[in-house]
Amino acid sequence: MKPRHFLSPLDWSSEELVSLAQTALTYKACGRGRLLDAPDLSGQLMGLLFFNPSVRTRLSSEAAMARLGGQASALAAGTQTWQFEDREGVTMDEDTQEHVKELGPVLSQICDGIGIRKAEKMSGGSQAGQAGASWEELSKDRFLHALADNAQVPVVNLESNAFHPCQGLADMATLLELTGGKPQGKRYVLTWAWHPKALPVATPHSQLLAAADLGMRITVARPEGYGLCPEVMGAAAARCAARGGSLEESADPLGALDDAIVVCAKSWGRLDSYGLPVEQASPAADLRPDWRVDETKMARTANAHFMHCLPIRRNVIATDGVLDSERCAVVQQAGNRLWSAVSIFARLLG
Amino acid sequence: MKPRHFLSPLDWSSEELVSLAQTALTYKACGRGRLLDAPDLSGQLMGLLFFNPSVRTRLSSEAAMARLGGQASALAAGTQTWQFEDREGVTMDEDTQEHVKELGPVLSQICDGIGIRKAEKMSGGSQAGQAGASWEELSKDRFLHALADNAQVPVVNLESNAFHPCQGLADMATLLELTGGKPQGKRYVLTWAWHPKALPVATPHSQLLAAADLGMRITVARPEGYGLCPEVMGAAAARCAARGGSLEESADPLGALDDAIVVCAKSWGRLDSYGLPVEQASPAADLRPDWRVDETKMARTANAHFMHCLPIRRNVIATDGVLDSERCAVVQQAGNRLWSAVSIFARLLG
Amino acid sequence: MKPRHFLSPLDWSSEELVSLAQTALTYKACGRGRLLDAPDLSGQLMGLLFFNPSVRTRLSSEAAMARLGGQASALAAGTQTWQFEDREGVTMDEDTQEHVKELGPVLSQICDGIGIRKAEKMSGGSQAGQAGASWEELSKDRFLHALADNAQVPVVNLESNAFHPCQGLADMATLLELTGGKPQGKRYVLTWAWHPKALPVATPHSQLLAAADLGMRITVARPEGYGLCPEVMGAAAARCAARGGSLEESADPLGALDDAIVVCAKSWGRLDSYGLPVEQASPAADLRPDWRVDETKMARTANAHFMHCLPIRRNVIATDGVLDSERCAVVQQAGNRLWSAVSIFARLLG
Repeated sequence: MKPRHFLSPLDWSSEELVSLAQTALTYKACGRGRLLDAPDLSGQLMGLLFFNPSVRTRLSSEAAMARLGGQASALAAGTQTWQFEDREGVTMDEDTQEHVKELGPVLSQICDGIGIRKAEKMSGGSQAGQAGASWEELSKDRFLHALADNAQVPVVNLESNAFHPCQGLADMATLLELTGGKPQGKRYVLTWAWHPKALPVATPHSQLLAAADLGMRITVARPEGYGLCPEVMGAAAARCAARGGSLEESADPLGALDDAIVVCAKSWGRLDSYGLPVEQASPAADLRPDWRVDETKMARTANAHFMHCLPIRRNVIATDGVLDSERCAVVQQAGNRLWSAVSIFARLLG
Repeated sequence: MKPRHFLSPLDWSSEELVSLAQTALTYKACGRGRLLDAPDLSGQLMGLLFFNPSVRTRLSSEAAMARLGGQASALAAGTQTWQFEDREGVTMDEDTQEHVKELGPVLSQICDGIGIRKAEKMSGGSQAGQAGASWEELSKDRFLHALADNAQVPVVNLESNAFHPCQGLADMATLLELTGGKPQGKRYVLTWAWHPKALPVATPHSQLLAAADLGMRITVARPEGYGLCPEVMGAAAARCAARGGSLEESADPLGALDDAIVVCAKSWGRLDSYGLPVEQASPAADLRPDWRVDETKMARTANAHFMHCLPIRRNVIATDGVLDSERCAVVQQAGNRLWSAVSIFARLLG
Repeated sequence: MKPRHFLSPLDWSSEELVSLAQTALTYKACGRGRLLDAPDLSGQLMGLLFFNPSVRTRLSSEAAMARLGGQASALAAGTQTWQFEDREGVTMDEDTQEHVKELGPVLSQICDGIGIRKAEKMSGGSQAGQAGASWEELSKDRFLHALADNAQVPVVNLESNAFHPCQGLADMATLLELTGGKPQGKRYVLTWAWHPKALPVATPHSQLLAAADLGMRITVARPEGYGLCPEVMGAAAARCAARGGSLEESADPLGALDDAIVVCAKSWGRLDSYGLPVEQASPAADLRPDWRVDETKMARTANAHFMHCLPIRRNVIATDGVLDSERCAVVQQAGNRLWSAVSIFARLLG
């Protein structure tokens, strides 16, 4: 029997995801230390493959396993491991040393669950963050799906090109908290922000779907040309409508904020910038002033909470004033990464 | 009192190793999660020093400790640690910062067991994998033995130049499974395969000894000049004969397979290639076609199972057809790495 | 309520530190495995940020958490994570990606404790170890304190520019052992040693304060110009005097050793060498012969025990004869790193 994976929010129904988020908040109420009213994962090991840097995702995965009595092991894929192959039928006489057809089953023998972060354009420090191919190609998340297809244990997507579903679930839990459990029909703005490098779209895709699954009244505010993936927008609109919400887009960074009760900022690169050199892919500098979230902008809202997935570049994405205000929910949101991971792991491995 | 180490299969009797492999299979029958009928290693930490990349060895060591209630910590030696020295009497005013005479006792104070992978010619991705010295010199595994001599807790060899005894034990457990517990006198072929880089001999040494300790009828098939270490061959022949088996060599990649019930493929470099630059050390290209395991070759056998330690370069070492067939046991074999590690750790640390 | 941190020995009273060291020795008496008469940290995760290499500190932190039922996760900060910022009000459009104002609260949400090693001049292998600024600037340990100020869980300093308080506590426990629990008024010599690179002063500062808190009769022996930080010397003198001891300095590497019952060797760079290029910062070669600890020097002492924090360059800092003698306590001292960590974590997280 194939295990259930957590690869894309679109593989799970809105009801299932909301239930996972609610369960996350139930666990959160239990406080620190070992969770007693949760599945016992003692003796179990979650293997985590990181092709990109991570703080929140890695630590929240490890802490989640600890809370459940299990353990996790994070491997820096590519440096501490072999180079992996996912193409069918290839003669592996060049750089790759291990095929996902072996990797998946082997990890399934040794580990009780697998986490994987593999995203182009994601970079730490002075790393380039250049995507090696077009969005059309990368959005298939070929390696992730090949790994999952070849695994006999649950695979959790810790961020791919298309989605960051653990972040999405943490955002959903946070939105439930911020709305007192009644998000339906409330106004949520996902606003693009300027950033020196073109960033991936996995996180805004997942954040958008989280608000959609809650039936919020959503506006995606972004410059012309920065639209999210049409397939994801379509899915979000359908899921949102089915839950009593709505989805629209706006290119007006200020007007889009009217009546918002939540403003979630995020930078991302143009879809047609995938595959371009870093310099050409980077957002145009003239977008910078209009798309930063500052106190003036927040004053347009209905006393909105401010959300961001972190890490955030202060005074670039949002000002100190916004981040240090009482309405800033970014730490709460990051903390919910832990409880979302607990909820997912308990569901899949328990 | 000196602790018992797991450094070389030659330090353990055939009977002891077979018993360890049988115990591994007993643990395997218990399934996932914490092992209840095993020594309780809770509160214990196994310190793992990796001078080379690892997937299976690291994760299986960590999962084994988790199964037994303990924990493991993997250090990337050399980058996350100091540079280590093992020469006697040296004045350490150059690159090395810590002597194994301190390292061994200190790790013994802090950890409950030590694992170490330190092998030349072992490389990940585009790394060179050049051996810094001759086989005669490297086969002494000087650092490994100096560490063990200076340790007051058990030291486990996670692959050295000469041996990979954890892999050997996993292969032994797999051979027991594949032969229904009756390996004696059955035909086992360890066949060399071409690989773009010269690989270490530690694994074939240990695989050979595993089959020898089971008293199988062994053929080592390899091109002229690619013989394994004569001392190891001699030890294998003696141990094999004592258990009712036999050992021969063949340079015929096809004929060697007749009547085989197990074909274990592995590439390795010539012993006289140690110390040569990577290009000169690499196997000659004209050996490539004859020494790949394909369906035609497997058809010569007595419906043999196919084994390989992984990672394996598909369509270089063996074809997709072989690897995707029902008789391919490589995933089972890799899975037995976990249970072998459980057996070793339970024995040494329990 | 702000949590109690373990950042500097000067934040804790002599009595508190001695009590922590005594508790460490009590835990040590319990032997290997899970500690039963200690706080239960099961389900808890300590997040460890390492900006520098580590063996003892990392493994002792991980083993300490294991002994207490918890877990630890070590992140190689900067390579496996984002680049962090600690300056107030900066516009983060350059290399840094995450501000400590987010990092501290977020780690506090996900982890139950935070450890951090961030020290300039500390380097592994062939790394440079150049300090980026003056001692006056670096001694403020700005990042460490910003992280702690922004954390809602205990932060443990795993070595900063100014202090290495976990090492200090281990030294204190060792001094209690070596003096049969009666260190007061006994003669302790902290002697400088030559080293090819200028090393940080955090460890000698902490070692000095450990002896001071025990009320020992202390001599700091060092060449002219190599005095430790005046503020730390002043604090050590005051704490020492209050406990019945004394503190003096000497530039005589031989005479300083008379009557010593403990000789603790350590190299460090001149305070005015911080910020200089590595070559200019390195200790002058003509200091090398006089400042190495050898058997002749040890013969001047009152049969003193030899201590060093490790790693130690053999025959540079001290001779093989000294390190291999019965009076050498460096392994015992390193082993006490584990029990000190247990004591600190049990106190702060329990």
